[in-house]
Amino acid sequence: MAKLYVEMSAEELKAEQKVLENRYNDFKAKNLKLDMSRGKPGADQLDLSDAMNHVESYVSDGVDIRNYGIMDGIPSCKKLFADLMGVESKNVIVGPNASLTLMFDYISQCFTHGVGDTPWCKLDEVKFLCPVPGYDRHFTILEHFGIKMINIEMKADGPDMDAIEEYIKDESVKGMFCVPKYSNPQGITFSDDVVKRIAALKPAAKDFRIIWDNAYCIHDLDDNGDVLLNIFDVLPQFGNEDMVIEVCSTSKITFPGAGVSALIASDNNIAAIKKRLNAQTISYDKMNQHRHVEFFKNADGVKAHMKKHAAILKPKFDIVLKHLDDELSGKGIAQWFNPKGGYFISLDVMNGCAKRVGELCREAGVVLTSVGATYPYGVDDKDSNIRIAPSFPPVAELDLAAELLCICVQLACIEKLIG
Amino acid sequence: MAKLYVEMSAEELKAEQKVLENRYNDFKAKNLKLDMSRGKPGADQLDLSDAMNHVESYVSDGVDIRNYGIMDGIPSCKKLFADLMGVESKNVIVGPNASLTLMFDYISQCFTHGVGDTPWCKLDEVKFLCPVPGYDRHFTILEHFGIKMINIEMKADGPDMDAIEEYIKDESVKGMFCVPKYSNPQGITFSDDVVKRIAALKPAAKDFRIIWDNAYCIHDLDDNGDVLLNIFDVLPQFGNEDMVIEVCSTSKITFPGAGVSALIASDNNIAAIKKRLNAQTISYDKMNQHRHVEFFKNADGVKAHMKKHAAILKPKFDIVLKHLDDELSGKGIAQWFNPKGGYFISLDVMNGCAKRVGELCREAGVVLTSVGATYPYGVDDKDSNIRIAPSFPPVAELDLAAELLCICVQLACIEKLIG
Repeated sequence: MAKLYVEMSAEELKAEQKVLENRYNDFKAKNLKLDMSRGKPGADQLDLSDAMNHVESYVSDGVDIRNYGIMDGIPSCKKLFADLMGVESKNVIVGPNASLTLMFDYISQCFTHGVGDTPWCKLDEVKFLCPVPGYDRHFTILEHFGIKMINIEMKADGPDMDAIEEYIKDESVKGMFCVPKYSNPQGITFSDDVVKRIAALKPAAKDFRIIWDNAYCIHDLDDNGDVLLNIFDVLPQFGNEDMVIEVCSTSKITFPGAGVSALIASDNNIAAIKKRLNAQTISYDKMNQHRHVEFFKNADGVKAHMKKHAAILKPKFDIVLKHLDDELSGKGIAQWFNPKGGYFISLDVMNGCAKRVGELCREAGVVLTSVGATYPYGVDDKDSNIRIAPSFPPVAELDLAAELLCICVQLACIEKLIG
Repeated sequence: MAKLYVEMSAEELKAEQKVLENRYNDFKAKNLKLDMSRGKPGADQLDLSDAMNHVESYVSDGVDIRNYGIMDGIPSCKKLFADLMGVESKNVIVGPNASLTLMFDYISQCFTHGVGDTPWCKLDEVKFLCPVPGYDRHFTILEHFGIKMINIEMKADGPDMDAIEEYIKDESVKGMFCVPKYSNPQGITFSDDVVKRIAALKPAAKDFRIIWDNAYCIHDLDDNGDVLLNIFDVLPQFGNEDMVIEVCSTSKITFPGAGVSALIASDNNIAAIKKRLNAQTISYDKMNQHRHVEFFKNADGVKAHMKKHAAILKPKFDIVLKHLDDELSGKGIAQWFNPKGGYFISLDVMNGCAKRVGELCREAGVVLTSVGATYPYGVDDKDSNIRIAPSFPPVAELDLAAELLCICVQLACIEKLIG
């Protein structure tokens, strides 16, 4: 039975430290070079989609889609995303190879043209709400545009709605980024109640926009995945159809960087985005859209494909969670969620220890996501959050890396306690 | 021997009109449905690149390029474009499926972040110089951002440099769009002297930027193509390396909408663009970049491929030019260039007649590019310019369409003359 570190005497801690240091040095001697920093699929996951590259005909619905035209996506691919996301095709724009670009371009459009009357570039200050910990690339977009980021605490069922309802009384608060299902990094899925409260928001800013980054919409680790309420089913009750811009992609379904993204939005927002697209492109890559449709056939095909990913990913999550549980539970030095999907495990260690854990890991050859990256401006005030990305390394390597991580967490906490 | 229309009597013109009307009505009876409106490659041109879709391995320089990463393009593809465009790889960013997006995104970046100190969105007025006639999609980008467009007359060797040198004394003139080789629509290639004068410009605006849209850089119709001076070889003499952003793409080499684009710029500009890209994308589609490299192998491979396009396109240009020559020359009612490459033939008809020509053609089943589209705001003051796009229809259809066009030009001019 593990003992709480805070209840251990200095001598007990030092004895524990000695044991851990020996284990740590043994690891160092192995000269490991392991990477748990980014949510990259493993090569075996990429192999699952290789057949996609052997499409013979590029005729779709009777149209030669090798040529110019069809700005918002070929109908078959719009339908595929519409079926997956539970919306109508008319509310889908099939986008470029990454939903990140869809999000960046939308924020850029808000700056240059605005959503209502005033382009955001004409305002003295624009603020966004950021559930934390969160996805570093959302923060990078916001920082790029000089948008002031306000941290919103994530709770077990989604972001702190009381705080959000308070902040949106400020008209300069223009939006929020969310990953509503299997949030990055915690793997939290917003509860129905949270989704409804979000859909019901009445922000002071009429041009308030929520970027609903549904990156892990069908990325369950097994058959008992979380179910996210479709916010577009709820928004109309509150007359808020225009408040949400949803994005998703096949980056973690087929190929990261060579997948297809999609944007889902109200009729008004689709019209405003198409107006911009009309100047920005003639079409996105329709041949790649067609490859995806031919490969999957329909939404069920995508879901069946995701089970193959789950079969590869589940053991990776399990091995990391086993180490966390074996070595860290009951000691009062770390907390984590057991996500049912997504790409990350979020580990909160004793305040003031996360950076030191990152250092110790790096010295022993294991790279974690930069500590702090899960917070706006790279600043985790509590120096507590560590994002673990188990997808890329093979299980045998993960086994080592996760063990080392647990050793480092314990060492850092003991250092902190005995000063 | 043709007679000048202006020297013909009313009776002669009416007799001519009668003959033309009969021919026109014969055409109408055919119920044609032909499209010469856009510079779309023909299906046989697209077939030339079909083998590109059968790449077996997606490993490039030892890297699995199916996964995340490599923001500015895989090295092999950067080198391919560098060799084609006569620059170093470090000055190339391989972009998305269309250079149009590279141009739009760059202008957007100038608005949100600026080139020097002041983002353009903070300025009261931004103006651009537009050689006319020009490419409608350039004008659409400028209009989208509310940039005031100033017409610059195209001469036989490029834009009117005297006018440009005068306009750039105005600090609110921030840039210019150019198609320096086989200009759209006239097919004019800028002379060495013009390129040098452009490279030597000393604009009042320190953040003056020329978008050098080299869309037809290797798109010759035969072995005697025009040679464009590489502006990046000349800019350093004048300390103007940062003034030009060049773009190109494989849209008319492999697949429109599923090709690869590239941006070529100075070290400073590349750094500024990469800073934005770091927020906008993780990478563009590297698998498509790799397909292109595997298919072409090197720059010579691309050039050899272009000869196959030329073999298909040359007869199409020839049949149109033959009709223009047979029916319109010597009558004082139309002028055109014989382009050595590119995708268009530009026809200037008697002032005040172009719209009527468009109407007559449409009524008989032939669609031309909207008259006026080759001018900013869609306004051709002289109502004279017609852009002919001969690439898409098969030769037999072009033969009909070009004959009909010539009939319509003559009819419209006679209508104008006899009132």
